[in-house]
Amino acid sequence: MKQAVGKVFLVGAGPGAADLLTLRAAECLKRAEIVFHDALVDSAVLSLAPRAERIAVGKRCGRFATAQQFISKRLVDAARKYRVVVRLKGGDPMLFGRAHEEIAALKAAGVAFEVVPGVTSALAAAAEAGVSLTQRGIARSVAFVTPRVGAGEAASEWAGAAAAADTAVIYMGAGQAEAIAAALLAAGAPRDLPVLVIENASLPTMRQVALTLADLPLIAQQDFTGPALIMVGRVCAEALAAESVELSLRAVSRSA
Amino acid sequence: MKQAVGKVFLVGAGPGAADLLTLRAAECLKRAEIVFHDALVDSAVLSLAPRAERIAVGKRCGRFATAQQFISKRLVDAARKYRVVVRLKGGDPMLFGRAHEEIAALKAAGVAFEVVPGVTSALAAAAEAGVSLTQRGIARSVAFVTPRVGAGEAASEWAGAAAAADTAVIYMGAGQAEAIAAALLAAGAPRDLPVLVIENASLPTMRQVALTLADLPLIAQQDFTGPALIMVGRVCAEALAAESVELSLRAVSRSA
Repeated sequence: MKQAVGKVFLVGAGPGAADLLTLRAAECLKRAEIVFHDALVDSAVLSLAPRAERIAVGKRCGRFATAQQFISKRLVDAARKYRVVVRLKGGDPMLFGRAHEEIAALKAAGVAFEVVPGVTSALAAAAEAGVSLTQRGIARSVAFVTPRVGAGEAASEWAGAAAAADTAVIYMGAGQAEAIAAALLAAGAPRDLPVLVIENASLPTMRQVALTLADLPLIAQQDFTGPALIMVGRVCAEALAAESVELSLRAVSRSA
Repeated sequence: MKQAVGKVFLVGAGPGAADLLTLRAAECLKRAEIVFHDALVDSAVLSLAPRAERIAVGKRCGRFATAQQFISKRLVDAARKYRVVVRLKGGDPMLFGRAHEEIAALKAAGVAFEVVPGVTSALAAAAEAGVSLTQRGIARSVAFVTPRVGAGEAASEWAGAAAAADTAVIYMGAGQAEAIAAALLAAGAPRDLPVLVIENASLPTMRQVALTLADLPLIAQQDFTGPALIMVGRVCAEALAAESVELSLRAVSRSA
């Protein structure tokens, strides 16, 4: 078997905006000879890798996905041909990034690798919404969860973890708002708990909607097509109050 | 009262290494006229702000801390004198960064502001340790918590949130390892749960120790002086197994 000559960098692409990559990630992309990227990664981010061959793999909100095993194999093969191989993942590689399987494959094949962390989208969403996930006297624990289940995986107790934390951010869940609201209510969350749904955090197409947990199923009407996060907790109370004021003002101006 | 002329950027400095700031954060620092930074921020990071007056405020692991109200007031005052004011916070501003209080003060004073997210230290620690916080079939929820209580704050149920998640990362807790282990055990975590303690993630002085939850109090002997994270969960099992192998090899080589 041909020896690996290159190194694989598992790089966090951040939440979307190209200038939210780290300096280290940008340097990796500049040096990259080949980049395997999530389909969701923006073209402005990819333009940071001008020399590299670019290959879209995995994940487009479940619409298509290159099988994980096949991605891992391609990384190992690429390290036998190229010196700098980048696997570019939305957000951070170690949080909902399936990095574990790729790392295991690289280790098994004796390929050198390095993980470059990124800004996870919950933090970009919090920044743009102006909502701190922790707040003195209100929130000292934050859970990042997903209700999304991989092929062959059993549904796990994500709602318990979310309900036990002062603040929860639900990744990859906007398509299942009704089930999420039901699971959180069943886990003991109050009906009037403030919720903020944020789509395309950090991109010009960013949208946010504030509502109560009981009203969360209504977002099905909002037609979110980009990646969206659901932020749940008392830290979202101000955002909900601000939106309610705005809505009443709009109602007043319509009726005037 | 003098009108604000400037804008305040609440910027995440990332986990420590200067090249783990985002491109946007680096650009803010380049343009900054004055930077108020956490005492923990590395000098290599501060050198990204060559033109700026630099003022250390807050937090050095509880050793000294400029009162939060006073920091907020200084930000508002600075926005009346400077066009680009940066408040540089370790990690991400919206996660254990006390951004909420500063944002409230800026809003009340009518000062324009923007939050620039950062890489939170748990993700840098995960990257360096090669431990994915989420893993297929093992971990789909991650809690970030702190047992540290601010002045006048009641102790909250952080351990319940940590124990309910598949993976927990405890910030600012290395000084209270014994109390943390006791609280997690009382919350139902098993004694043999793998734990990874990581100090100075992303810096050349980074150190990591793997042990079981029951053994966590032993880290009191390790003399951690830098900021350290405690990562708890089955995702740390491989790191613990690797360290056990290394320790037995060392024992063998000593006895040989």
